[in-house]
Amino acid sequence: MIHSPTTRAGCARPEEDPIPTLRFGVNYTPRHGWFHSWHDFDPAHAREDLAQIAGLGLDHVRVFHLWPLLQPNRTLIRTAAVDQLAQLVDLAAEAGLDVLVDGVQGHLSSFDFYPEWTRSWHHRNVFTDPEAVTAQAELMRTLGRALAGRPNLIGLQLGNELNNLVEHNPVTADQVDHYLDTLLAATREHLPADRLATHSAYDAAWYGDDHPFTPEASAHKGDLTTVHPWVFSGDCARRYGPRSPQVLHLAEYGTELATAYAVDPARPVWVQETGAPEPHIPAADAPEFARATVRNAALGCANLWGVTWWCSHDVDRSLADYPELEYTLGLFDSAGRAKPIAEALAATVAELRAEPPSPAPRETALVLDCTPATRSVSGPGGAYFEEWMRLRAEGARPAVVLAARADDGEYLAARGIKEVVRLP
Amino acid sequence: MIHSPTTRAGCARPEEDPIPTLRFGVNYTPRHGWFHSWHDFDPAHAREDLAQIAGLGLDHVRVFHLWPLLQPNRTLIRTAAVDQLAQLVDLAAEAGLDVLVDGVQGHLSSFDFYPEWTRSWHHRNVFTDPEAVTAQAELMRTLGRALAGRPNLIGLQLGNELNNLVEHNPVTADQVDHYLDTLLAATREHLPADRLATHSAYDAAWYGDDHPFTPEASAHKGDLTTVHPWVFSGDCARRYGPRSPQVLHLAEYGTELATAYAVDPARPVWVQETGAPEPHIPAADAPEFARATVRNAALGCANLWGVTWWCSHDVDRSLADYPELEYTLGLFDSAGRAKPIAEALAATVAELRAEPPSPAPRETALVLDCTPATRSVSGPGGAYFEEWMRLRAEGARPAVVLAARADDGEYLAARGIKEVVRLP
Repeated sequence: MIHSPTTRAGCARPEEDPIPTLRFGVNYTPRHGWFHSWHDFDPAHAREDLAQIAGLGLDHVRVFHLWPLLQPNRTLIRTAAVDQLAQLVDLAAEAGLDVLVDGVQGHLSSFDFYPEWTRSWHHRNVFTDPEAVTAQAELMRTLGRALAGRPNLIGLQLGNELNNLVEHNPVTADQVDHYLDTLLAATREHLPADRLATHSAYDAAWYGDDHPFTPEASAHKGDLTTVHPWVFSGDCARRYGPRSPQVLHLAEYGTELATAYAVDPARPVWVQETGAPEPHIPAADAPEFARATVRNAALGCANLWGVTWWCSHDVDRSLADYPELEYTLGLFDSAGRAKPIAEALAATVAELRAEPPSPAPRETALVLDCTPATRSVSGPGGAYFEEWMRLRAEGARPAVVLAARADDGEYLAARGIKEVVRLP
Repeated sequence: MIHSPTTRAGCARPEEDPIPTLRFGVNYTPRHGWFHSWHDFDPAHAREDLAQIAGLGLDHVRVFHLWPLLQPNRTLIRTAAVDQLAQLVDLAAEAGLDVLVDGVQGHLSSFDFYPEWTRSWHHRNVFTDPEAVTAQAELMRTLGRALAGRPNLIGLQLGNELNNLVEHNPVTADQVDHYLDTLLAATREHLPADRLATHSAYDAAWYGDDHPFTPEASAHKGDLTTVHPWVFSGDCARRYGPRSPQVLHLAEYGTELATAYAVDPARPVWVQETGAPEPHIPAADAPEFARATVRNAALGCANLWGVTWWCSHDVDRSLADYPELEYTLGLFDSAGRAKPIAEALAATVAELRAEPPSPAPRETALVLDCTPATRSVSGPGGAYFEEWMRLRAEGARPAVVLAARADDGEYLAARGIKEVVRLP
């Protein structure tokens, strides 16, 4: 399924409203108790958080339950937990927000949430153990069945950055492909055709040499490509500085890179996570970083589906053990006050809604010639990345094209590419 | 604190009732959803289960919450989960049952329940990491504060067989001692003097050469010694047969062995877990096994505090991945029907209540000469174990005395030991 802007799924707004071409939202991190709040789900707290989010003019949230709470035994999916998710989707609808639901968490802000039946004496590789994969597929199927009827459901995603689990669950690229295919098929089973079934990976999929989640898996599987271009990946912000072109164009670059790996030249790319982690982005720079990140992607990328900021609310300091940068990623602080970055994001979104961008094709493409084992050339510090950014800083708007397609005239034409250049 | 039978803590029965010398109870495994039921605690289900247990004439239950649900973040102890425990204690009181609450689970029926802040990217050794130990101490302190006022609270135990966690948290004996001391001190803090603060270990503490949980830690720390003499330990039932003296006197032996390691000759010993695991004990043999186990310990062991059967309810077959023997350990099946073993246990308890035993001192002691590195001599298959059982099967009632005390006349007199014999 291609998610067309003109038949956008899950719009909770009245039909007479203009349908925005681009989607802008936020990854929802509950203010009270972070994701531990699922243990004691409080609709009043969720309603308050969602109203704040909607108040910024955002149109959607991405939400996350916890795997051990959803599926505490391999053959037990808790109806009550699934119902909580459905209730959250409905509360979002009340606030005028659409929702993407991530299923298998999995990984969140440095913590891995594994059900006990996959760990310790019961160790199972979550990617390769056939019964573990079957169980996750059943979880996705169950979520699809439960949520399919919600008009504001954007879709279901397998889970947040599942490739963070690779470190403790060794897996090959072929096994990852099988895993993703199995779970996406199960996710799709009960989902209407106009809803998304997607997966997500952290940047190692794009930049990590030999990482078993491949760019192709991201760019070919699921209904669109999701990217999470974080400024700490490859030390981007440390390497180039928080106000550098490399940082301010990182989401734009990630979107173009993802487009290069797609088969369909028009496949949408969702900047599903980007944020302003301190000290990589000092708090004083965060508003401008947010504004530039969103504008550069929106004005520059024809395939952009939308941008979803990480995250809605700061982690309360009473909770321990998060990496320092995870505490202050919110648009709202842990007391619920909007931070300057929230205002910058809201204003930027309002501007882009008022004058919807229609990016021109990128006529010059820089050829990316790498293998799975050398893909770090396309990441921060890599020769390809640096040349692309050099051209961009000079005012060019380079596309990315894979070497294998650099001579495919039909393909290049479909993308509007008129000139192909190679690394010097 | 020594838990004296005449000042027994936490009796929920009317004062005019005779106070039983021996305590008989069951480890409570919720019929609906096993311990996953804490996610959706249903007082009606608990009430039904507890009424069944009380209906057997038992006087107490041992109950278990789950560590990740109680303390999902290192600095977050969920009030709602603590309240659930308090509510369960109160429901037990309604049913006329006293309660021992185990705090840090930890390990249950092959599953290890670790909070996410101790695993994966956040790996911490739960026994040795100072912050992890402090957090567990705070959990025990919190449970003590919340439950101290319940009249039917027997006490608090650190957790179920914490030494099952050794495999994934390497630790020395000294570190275990520090861990247990720290947590027991925290547990004791808010607990009235007439309630127990205890810990528990599986049989490796008694029989496992070089195992870091020592017999001394079990026999010296906390207010009494708990033993979990399981017939699968050291392959006891397979080695000697399900109807063998070794099996039928195993709980009695474990109680005497624990007495030998105590400093105080009168320190109570609680047979806190014993059960009839198939196929080690075939279902047809289970009633007689239960009867013999309880009678041999009750009639033979002067220091016995009581016996707590494992467990109340079978694990429902809809739940996956338990070792086969864990499914059928209940006195009640998963449909709630009393099994023959329940009737045998109830009858045995009634008999012992009608004619309370007063075991005579064991006048002949068999000297146990081993070190932490050779303690397997005292387990099934070991020379000491086999000689003790040989004497017992011949009708003798041997005590166990440590070699270090075999010449201590005062000590032997305090135990009523008149003769000391050594292995042939």
